[in-house]
Amino acid sequence: MARVNDHYLELKANYLFSDIAKRVAAFGEANPGAKLIRLGIGDVTRPLPPSVVNALHDAADEMARFDSFKGYGPETGYTFLTELVAAHDYGARGVTVAPDEVFVSDGAKCDTTNIQEIFGDSCVVALVDPVYPAYVDSNVMAGRAGRADGAGRYDRLVYLPATADNGFRPALPTRPVDLIYLCYPNNPTGAVLGRDALREWVEYARRHQAVILYDAAYEAYIRDPDVPHSIYEIDGAREVAIEFRSFSKTAGFTGTRCAFTVVPKELQGRSATGEPVSLHALWFRRQSTKFNGVSYVIQKAAAAVYTPDGQKEVREAIEFYMENARIIREGLVAVGLTVYGARNAPYIWVKTPPGLGSWQLFDKLLNEAHVVSTPGAGFGPSGEGYLRLTAFGSREQTVDAVERIRTRLRL
Amino acid sequence: MARVNDHYLELKANYLFSDIAKRVAAFGEANPGAKLIRLGIGDVTRPLPPSVVNALHDAADEMARFDSFKGYGPETGYTFLTELVAAHDYGARGVTVAPDEVFVSDGAKCDTTNIQEIFGDSCVVALVDPVYPAYVDSNVMAGRAGRADGAGRYDRLVYLPATADNGFRPALPTRPVDLIYLCYPNNPTGAVLGRDALREWVEYARRHQAVILYDAAYEAYIRDPDVPHSIYEIDGAREVAIEFRSFSKTAGFTGTRCAFTVVPKELQGRSATGEPVSLHALWFRRQSTKFNGVSYVIQKAAAAVYTPDGQKEVREAIEFYMENARIIREGLVAVGLTVYGARNAPYIWVKTPPGLGSWQLFDKLLNEAHVVSTPGAGFGPSGEGYLRLTAFGSREQTVDAVERIRTRLRL
Repeated sequence: MARVNDHYLELKANYLFSDIAKRVAAFGEANPGAKLIRLGIGDVTRPLPPSVVNALHDAADEMARFDSFKGYGPETGYTFLTELVAAHDYGARGVTVAPDEVFVSDGAKCDTTNIQEIFGDSCVVALVDPVYPAYVDSNVMAGRAGRADGAGRYDRLVYLPATADNGFRPALPTRPVDLIYLCYPNNPTGAVLGRDALREWVEYARRHQAVILYDAAYEAYIRDPDVPHSIYEIDGAREVAIEFRSFSKTAGFTGTRCAFTVVPKELQGRSATGEPVSLHALWFRRQSTKFNGVSYVIQKAAAAVYTPDGQKEVREAIEFYMENARIIREGLVAVGLTVYGARNAPYIWVKTPPGLGSWQLFDKLLNEAHVVSTPGAGFGPSGEGYLRLTAFGSREQTVDAVERIRTRLRL
Repeated sequence: MARVNDHYLELKANYLFSDIAKRVAAFGEANPGAKLIRLGIGDVTRPLPPSVVNALHDAADEMARFDSFKGYGPETGYTFLTELVAAHDYGARGVTVAPDEVFVSDGAKCDTTNIQEIFGDSCVVALVDPVYPAYVDSNVMAGRAGRADGAGRYDRLVYLPATADNGFRPALPTRPVDLIYLCYPNNPTGAVLGRDALREWVEYARRHQAVILYDAAYEAYIRDPDVPHSIYEIDGAREVAIEFRSFSKTAGFTGTRCAFTVVPKELQGRSATGEPVSLHALWFRRQSTKFNGVSYVIQKAAAAVYTPDGQKEVREAIEFYMENARIIREGLVAVGLTVYGARNAPYIWVKTPPGLGSWQLFDKLLNEAHVVSTPGAGFGPSGEGYLRLTAFGSREQTVDAVERIRTRLRL
């Protein structure tokens, strides 16, 4: 008799964005004429940069000819791309990452959820709270989270609250943990970690032989020159950290799918008998067994991001989205809301007014301003009392949303 | 302290194709002038069909414009593709599969290795032997295989030998099993299962509430009209089978990456408490949590396979490769070798002459004929005494390889 993975049954019944979709659908049915503005999901809206589109065309033509057709590629990515990543994303910042430490993938979501497979079931997992829900869910599915209480808090996970009360800077764990998910610039709060704060985490991990899973998918949005773009800018991080990056929010690849993960060769875990085991070797084995590489044409498209034109086009898109972030932040402050983030990240983290919960403010924005947001509670227990807006809309939508909130929202 | 997944340490040290690559590299160093013909890995060599290339170009242009740009798509695939799959791959054969039972992915390797995640650790796994090594490895990594003996046979797996002695038709398991990996047309033996044989498996699975994981990646190569293309052609299979398909070996997508998996809504496993649980729901949850969908441009390219021109182009490529299979089969028979497969599959399964093991014949082919093959032992214990050649080379290479074998191999 085929037994299922019972850990799946510990997942909360609905995924955050499905819940939102249901409320939006119900609103649409009740208000057929209403024109919704969606600032909920962190999905880009600008087209692919011209350099990327040109590279897609060129690669398609290569695939059409016998002499340049490409079959199976290296499971971990073509060197034409891993060398660019090593040079531009790391070397240019004085950080040493070898091309064969870069694993190209079809998305940071896949990598940040698959990575736990190379660790033991007994690992204690710590996560910044609030945070991207897939870190939690993938550990629930693997049996590392235990059971959820009524508020959706799992008893085996260690939550690291990041709220206005601590300046969105979570304290180090008070009990030993083995795996630590950090996401900076943070989704959803938009907070960043300065060099000193990041150094504390690296030192904690070194002291406890823990591994930091550092999701830097939004690093391109950092504007403050004192904020590190990579955890490897901190001395000693290569022995304790895996870093995740993505082309999604920089080059508009949410529907095109390319990302990469860095696993330094120094990084080690321990076997049951206490022997050191290379995590680079385990991840290589995981990816070469359960993955077959990213499409050649997509890797060529990603490589075009590193051309001078590609870099210019990507910077323009990021500037555009960050101007949206400024418009939303200033617009919400003007109506008396307290707002965080939006300075080094494309996310605006809104404090709900006294007496209103996350989902209540979500419903008010939906029903009164016809703006779709994301309730903070969906990102973890400490997200309650907040709400996320994203800067990824068009300029017209963004300005319109702020105007609607100013004129229609009854706070 | 970060503990690793100790199950990884039970994997055999080297992956088959890495071992081969090492021997080939050593040969190349010792014989710098030799011109190798690679008929080892099952990788296509013909360019993408023109319809597919055109669709890639059109999709790239869509991604370049604000009004047609696509961000995140449905994690399980766009309906424009799932509806084509349901209609052409199933409806046209009188088989009912709903579009939302089709899960589009970036490869059958990913799906056939990820699928075990939705099942319990205690499931007993049976596999046809020899077979594609990733089924075994993914279960080793998940802890379902136990320990390997010196011959690489894991003590918790149930091997179902398929050799010339039983006409490559494995007997039903003699002890209860929960998950059954079947691959037909088979990689590596090229064997197929007729309707009656497949019906026996479906009946076995129904009787034991087992689930069949049916890898039909090579179904397009079936020429015998009596051989089923889908397990769902057998009555009752929807309650017991998951089917895997791929565009890799039909439309030349090994480097382009698109595949799909069918999970019928009737299919159920059991929870620890004996409750039925929908495997469709679990796989949906797995994919929406740990995967983010296939690139829009790649899905558009895959959809082009179903146009009249696309169908014609795909059929031509398959005919071409099957003519290679015939040339190899007849050439080897002419030198006195015993050969299987190659009639409904692009694989030629060669019996090693008396006194020669798989790796010995591999080395002879490499050193005497300068032809790279795959030793049968790499596909499982029952692959010992066989060797795989593939039909995916160019015509010139294929003819040349047969001629070299004829004139240079000292049997």
